[in-house]
Amino acid sequence: MASVLSGIKDPADLKNLTSAQLEILCAELREEIIGTVSLSGGHLGASLGVVELTVALHRVYDSPRDKIVWDVGHQAYGHKLLTGRRDRFGTLRAKDGIAGFPKRSESPHDMFGVGHASTAISAAVGYAVARDARGGNNSVIAVVGDGALTGGLAFEGLNNAGQLQTDLTVILNDNKMSISPNVGAIAKYLTRITSGHHYNRLEADLWDLLGKLPKGGKAQVLASRIKESLKQLVVPTILFEELGFKYFGPIDGHDLPLVIRTLEAVRRLKGPVLIHLITSKGKGYRFAEEDGQRYHGVGKFDRSEGIKVVKPTVPSFTEVFGQALCDLADRDERIHGITAAMPSGTGLGKLKDRHPHRFHDVGIAEAHAVTFAAGLACDGRRPVAAIYSTFLQRALDQIIHDVALQHLPVVFAVDRGGVVGEDGPTHHGVFDLTFLRMVPGMVVMAPRDEDQLRHMLATGLAREDGPSALRYPRGSGLGVPLTGPPTPLVIGTAETLHRGDDVCVLAVGSLVGPALVAAERLAVAGIGVEVVDMRFVKPLDEDTLASVWERHRLVLTAEENALCGGFGAAVLEWASGQGAGGPRVELLGIPDRFQEHAGRDELLAALGLDAAGLAASIRRTVEGEGRSRAQSAS
Amino acid sequence: MASVLSGIKDPADLKNLTSAQLEILCAELREEIIGTVSLSGGHLGASLGVVELTVALHRVYDSPRDKIVWDVGHQAYGHKLLTGRRDRFGTLRAKDGIAGFPKRSESPHDMFGVGHASTAISAAVGYAVARDARGGNNSVIAVVGDGALTGGLAFEGLNNAGQLQTDLTVILNDNKMSISPNVGAIAKYLTRITSGHHYNRLEADLWDLLGKLPKGGKAQVLASRIKESLKQLVVPTILFEELGFKYFGPIDGHDLPLVIRTLEAVRRLKGPVLIHLITSKGKGYRFAEEDGQRYHGVGKFDRSEGIKVVKPTVPSFTEVFGQALCDLADRDERIHGITAAMPSGTGLGKLKDRHPHRFHDVGIAEAHAVTFAAGLACDGRRPVAAIYSTFLQRALDQIIHDVALQHLPVVFAVDRGGVVGEDGPTHHGVFDLTFLRMVPGMVVMAPRDEDQLRHMLATGLAREDGPSALRYPRGSGLGVPLTGPPTPLVIGTAETLHRGDDVCVLAVGSLVGPALVAAERLAVAGIGVEVVDMRFVKPLDEDTLASVWERHRLVLTAEENALCGGFGAAVLEWASGQGAGGPRVELLGIPDRFQEHAGRDELLAALGLDAAGLAASIRRTVEGEGRSRAQSAS
Repeated sequence: MASVLSGIKDPADLKNLTSAQLEILCAELREEIIGTVSLSGGHLGASLGVVELTVALHRVYDSPRDKIVWDVGHQAYGHKLLTGRRDRFGTLRAKDGIAGFPKRSESPHDMFGVGHASTAISAAVGYAVARDARGGNNSVIAVVGDGALTGGLAFEGLNNAGQLQTDLTVILNDNKMSISPNVGAIAKYLTRITSGHHYNRLEADLWDLLGKLPKGGKAQVLASRIKESLKQLVVPTILFEELGFKYFGPIDGHDLPLVIRTLEAVRRLKGPVLIHLITSKGKGYRFAEEDGQRYHGVGKFDRSEGIKVVKPTVPSFTEVFGQALCDLADRDERIHGITAAMPSGTGLGKLKDRHPHRFHDVGIAEAHAVTFAAGLACDGRRPVAAIYSTFLQRALDQIIHDVALQHLPVVFAVDRGGVVGEDGPTHHGVFDLTFLRMVPGMVVMAPRDEDQLRHMLATGLAREDGPSALRYPRGSGLGVPLTGPPTPLVIGTAETLHRGDDVCVLAVGSLVGPALVAAERLAVAGIGVEVVDMRFVKPLDEDTLASVWERHRLVLTAEENALCGGFGAAVLEWASGQGAGGPRVELLGIPDRFQEHAGRDELLAALGLDAAGLAASIRRTVEGEGRSRAQSAS
Repeated sequence: MASVLSGIKDPADLKNLTSAQLEILCAELREEIIGTVSLSGGHLGASLGVVELTVALHRVYDSPRDKIVWDVGHQAYGHKLLTGRRDRFGTLRAKDGIAGFPKRSESPHDMFGVGHASTAISAAVGYAVARDARGGNNSVIAVVGDGALTGGLAFEGLNNAGQLQTDLTVILNDNKMSISPNVGAIAKYLTRITSGHHYNRLEADLWDLLGKLPKGGKAQVLASRIKESLKQLVVPTILFEELGFKYFGPIDGHDLPLVIRTLEAVRRLKGPVLIHLITSKGKGYRFAEEDGQRYHGVGKFDRSEGIKVVKPTVPSFTEVFGQALCDLADRDERIHGITAAMPSGTGLGKLKDRHPHRFHDVGIAEAHAVTFAAGLACDGRRPVAAIYSTFLQRALDQIIHDVALQHLPVVFAVDRGGVVGEDGPTHHGVFDLTFLRMVPGMVVMAPRDEDQLRHMLATGLAREDGPSALRYPRGSGLGVPLTGPPTPLVIGTAETLHRGDDVCVLAVGSLVGPALVAAERLAVAGIGVEVVDMRFVKPLDEDTLASVWERHRLVLTAEENALCGGFGAAVLEWASGQGAGGPRVELLGIPDRFQEHAGRDELLAALGLDAAGLAASIRRTVEGEGRSRAQSAS
């Protein structure tokens, strides 16, 4: 029997299905998602949780005429399967395959490209205002998780939408989780709505009272009026009502007929509407229901046995960071760790267990995380804000205005610096060296391996008079031995790791290792490559640079960061102050365009930033220089 | 008779004053503030509005042991006068004088440096958590305006504080204004609280009902219980209560004894508390009470006559931008203008009057402004987001993730690019060229005069396939004639404005004018200076650069932006791809440290970025090069 899903070429095909077929479709979507993600890896729990919602949305609305805007987007696999991408779904997150998030260039049904949280309401307000300006009458729907509601941007969007009173539906997909269990006053509040304690008590009292009053008397009329007022005012949904939204819910987000009925009713309403759905992350896959955090984002796994925990032999940068922070916190009670809803992703789980009062998960709220850290530092604490590079972009002003301008010793542990792989362009952390080194007084470090990372963390924490950042890549360390307890480095000192006379490579962070491999390979070919691990992007080790400038005619810089304004640019800026006659400098790094999704190693190879690519660049430069010297000599 | 104020050397001195003396103190503070600001310029209305609150805070709390954190900080003049800075108050905002905002390096009573809005709650949460970690028992108070509540950061702070339930007092200073009348659903909500319509009606009904019921009967007991429940639940303060705060208010913020009593009562409470004060911006100075927007930030004025409107002969960049946007919007109905609470500061007032449906004030919410613009652009509109450079730092991630990555044609009108003068380091807009040119696909322009600005706006609006930014300085244009209607430039084309053989200056934006003056002066001294207005920081005009590289041995770059990663760095990056043998390049711009407050002209002169400074740098470079050539020839 042909499946229902295989008959869906376009979301309009859902209009013709029976209720029974829609239920089958939900089951088939779950099968397809679990099957594919078990082979490709990806975000599992979120998409399973919104299967019924996805089917209901495409049943009730007319995409792309109606604008369905997904927040974060890791829950949009079902949406992709219903909008003409089923044939290619097996290429999910693979190089040249379909993206793990909605992407405008991929489908006209993807209304707003996404990856970061909390953007959907603002984008939907844009769509709604645009519709009004052009005199259209399409619907605009933003699907937002409860986790994303902790982000200030979501609140700014609600605040604006509530005032404008334009037609707009926000669907709050409440599963009590961001990646980890959700935090914050709003999260508590949503739980109270769901349990409905206060209102139920009040309502019971009122019914009781009405029964005691003489029928039709003035008292009963009054009491009824009060009850009506209460309905409008007492239900704790008042928070959204006070922000100008009509509130519907909470309703069971897995009850497909109910979700469809609700959307159909709401579709005709004017003004901003909020529908509160309760869903279970991972719904329909036992392992994911039981451990939502582990099944949020996954690698390949055996679907009948679930994820097997295989302890990798080489720990990740993240793990080593988490352990080092714990060790330092054991010895210095002023140390605090801060995460924006990523306790496990940033390695802070260990600190949470060992020093719970000095562990702070502030929710998806990077700007607050940084200003909160500034406040802690003002009172003599030593905060470490562990935030992925791509998300730290959300706190640039707080880094400048609240931390650096006040010379506060906040340490930024910038994880996922560089290309991140399958999550793609929304998540690559390739701008941090530029926007961090631009900040006066900031010390910017990039460890070449997990051992250096520990010492750089200690370096940042030893600083008294200003902020520091250490940025390190996603994935495994290099498996190097850890050398003693974390110990501060002398700020602004490089290390020369390989000697050679033909060319000097100034490398930072993740590119030091490949540069060393390249140097060894080229030594065999008779090319002498000096490799300097600069360690500090800011301040630069000017003594080492001066020595290199004296001894070399050819210098290459190597970084896993945008070339625009990055480490290489810093070297050029320094060099421009040295007058004429210096070496020729060539920059290797991320060129000035967004990088697509693919495996991290694939991306680095394509960019020429693996050992082979660096070796080729070095060889080409040396040989080119040789030719040009020969020409000028002839 | 000695004034009360003159006897206050430290806030502790307020403890000994009588109620009558405290009232006199308030009057004297107002006198001092009006008198000084009329001579120095500054922020007037905000500080006048919180005089009673300021006196009450220092009467009740023990600063600096208790931590009083001012949001934005332009309301802290009274605080400065009470914390040992009265003698120097006359130097307000002058070079080497006291700052216009709280500043940690200026006084131990300034707990958190500020200038941007919405940071105080987050910083106060940091102070509160730090206190708990070290076992302290001091109070922490954040003073936040209703305008700042529209910022997502403030919400992130409330959300976190509400969950933590640590002791913390937020004072909501509600004057219905940011700089302009406040907007957003929260603003409407606060107005409803103040008018109290719903609750008053309900309460009246309930009293009525209670009177009708038999005394002591079950019905009356029930009704009383309901009334108690209502008190807790129905008052629309529930929004803050639902976020975990105890709410007190609204109370008259100019009733000094009431404010003092309230703070004294609240001081002993546990957990997060929110006090809602109603104040009048400009209170006590007739002109400022009547026109809050005009008296928000002022220049010098005659205190008995108020600000005289003198139309300057040369329009500002802001005004020319506003007019050009209006003209373009007349001809293209897709154009929208967006401001984050700065309709007059950004020049969008004209658009508001002429095309109110295409004018959008989203409140102090820069991140939302940008993502909202992205949503508009997705639906075919042509949004122009007019945001000061310093505040655009709050939207970096939205620029990257929501706009540039999707190649959306959003135009960023970046006002106040460069040093801004008296507002000082929190407000200087000296990082934008770095963080904007780092973004793939962004076109970055800087007009040398107000006429170019018009054409650059048209250039951005003519772009179909990606975002553009034009950044221009605070203050008057150059008084140049406006050449025809705004017309798109060819992207990435420079203009050579002055010829000379000894050295070439590549300048952008505000430094083109001074470079031309310098070139003319140096021509008299026999030094030939070529001046190129690069116009586009990105993409660079590579043909022009190649021509310069062929003809010159000495190149200077000149920009009113941080040298770290700025325009000069872009030129160096390009040059590094040209191989060896190019000219020597020297970079002029803002060095790598925060710039203090002073007049804009004073700052530029001190930085060597006025005509005299550029002339001196050029001459030094040319003569140094001459010497080094002579040496190498000898």
